[in-house]
Amino acid sequence: SGLVLVKNPHLDLMEEDVLYHLDLGTKTHNLPAMFGDIKFVCVGGSPNRMRAFAQFMQRELGLAAAGEDVADICAGSDRYAMYRAGPVLSISHGMGIPSISIMLHELIKLLHHAKCRDVTIIRIGTSGGLGIEAGSVVITDTAVDSSFQPRFEQVVLGDVVVRSTELDKDLAEELLACSRDIPDFPTLIGHTMCTYDFYEGQGRLDGALCSFSSEKKLEYLRRAYEAGVRNIEMESTAFAALCGLCGLKGESCRFHLP
Amino acid sequence: SGLVLVKNPHLDLMEEDVLYHLDLGTKTHNLPAMFGDIKFVCVGGSPNRMRAFAQFMQRELGLAAAGEDVADICAGSDRYAMYRAGPVLSISHGMGIPSISIMLHELIKLLHHAKCRDVTIIRIGTSGGLGIEAGSVVITDTAVDSSFQPRFEQVVLGDVVVRSTELDKDLAEELLACSRDIPDFPTLIGHTMCTYDFYEGQGRLDGALCSFSSEKKLEYLRRAYEAGVRNIEMESTAFAALCGLCGLKGESCRFHLP
Repeated sequence: SGLVLVKNPHLDLMEEDVLYHLDLGTKTHNLPAMFGDIKFVCVGGSPNRMRAFAQFMQRELGLAAAGEDVADICAGSDRYAMYRAGPVLSISHGMGIPSISIMLHELIKLLHHAKCRDVTIIRIGTSGGLGIEAGSVVITDTAVDSSFQPRFEQVVLGDVVVRSTELDKDLAEELLACSRDIPDFPTLIGHTMCTYDFYEGQGRLDGALCSFSSEKKLEYLRRAYEAGVRNIEMESTAFAALCGLCGLKGESCRFHLP
Repeated sequence: SGLVLVKNPHLDLMEEDVLYHLDLGTKTHNLPAMFGDIKFVCVGGSPNRMRAFAQFMQRELGLAAAGEDVADICAGSDRYAMYRAGPVLSISHGMGIPSISIMLHELIKLLHHAKCRDVTIIRIGTSGGLGIEAGSVVITDTAVDSSFQPRFEQVVLGDVVVRSTELDKDLAEELLACSRDIPDFPTLIGHTMCTYDFYEGQGRLDGALCSFSSEKKLEYLRRAYEAGVRNIEMESTAFAALCGLCGLKGESCRFHLP
């Protein structure tokens, strides 16, 4: 049916669903009227970048004059920022798996309550590249954990549940085809490694703590490259697992900063 | 010596240390002049609340007229917000362990570069209470994980390193003594449970996914209570581990929203 799946029998029994961190709710807002025609959701860490992206989309779609501002739909909360440009929603998710998970749970319920159909969700932003040219864009085929395994371990009431982290292969190919029109950005499909920590987790030598040598770091990153990893970030496994379970066609495209 | 410890031999070899997510650096800013006299750092999830807290401290310390604004020291970055009121620094950390970890790594290096001495760091904000009166404040003696164990598992280059999560017991008692002057807020010392997820991890029945019954949720929360847990949030184990390793006297005080 193309509808977004919510897998929670308790929701039907609730009189009201408050999407607390988005400052939206089923009783306070007419969600089908506000969001029913959304077809694309783009998410990224930084609120400023997601506002700039919405402004860019407005211009690309011919919906607004250059420089015209967009309004933050979640202005009543400072946890996330949300903007729309026609059928495109642009939302920030902060940094790390816990932060993106809260946003995705509430976004998925929002799309469900709004009765959206055939929604595509794309994660955009930056990441650290691995053995690739600076300025490249990596489209993720599979998100892997810090042991290079395609899995997301979710703790549910103290028990570990293992979830799949595959993303939509057709969408990845479609995005790769689009990239051929933009010759300035070398684009490739590869695995994306997701870590819980930016400094020690990704082998950075400039954290407040660092107990490893640069040799050990290089050896780890070499093993990651050999396992197919082409970029490293902090949200992809949770993003892939939640999109997969809720029937959202999802992809991650990240720019490796020069 | 009271100095903040940085445990990274690589830092001394670096010509410049860029605190990227704070938009500060050793070459672009005179960190000892800007921060050398800081004695207290208060951290919390929400940027708006941390600005309000800095304004409150300014008034309490007689440093500014009511309503006078404070400037965001990290205005060049939208990852975190930072304000100061006399010797008190007030910083936001977003939601979840990965987000607070990035901020703490850079904050600890900031305090180190600024040659700060005898700094106390206190985490403030809200959390979900467990078997306690709404409106209570929980001061954490020990942060525990979702198995109620006093440990933080940090993945370093793919390997799990287990760290202690004890907080400063004297500081906890000192804060409890302060609370006696504020009769409106029942205050207690207890364990704080830290989860990686807000919905499934904390047994909430209103996420986009929920595979457990309300009975199973109550049984888990009952076991947590019996293990000494009095509130649940998403940053305390990483906070306790990093403060402990870097010689920062740290505590967590969280308000259980009515």
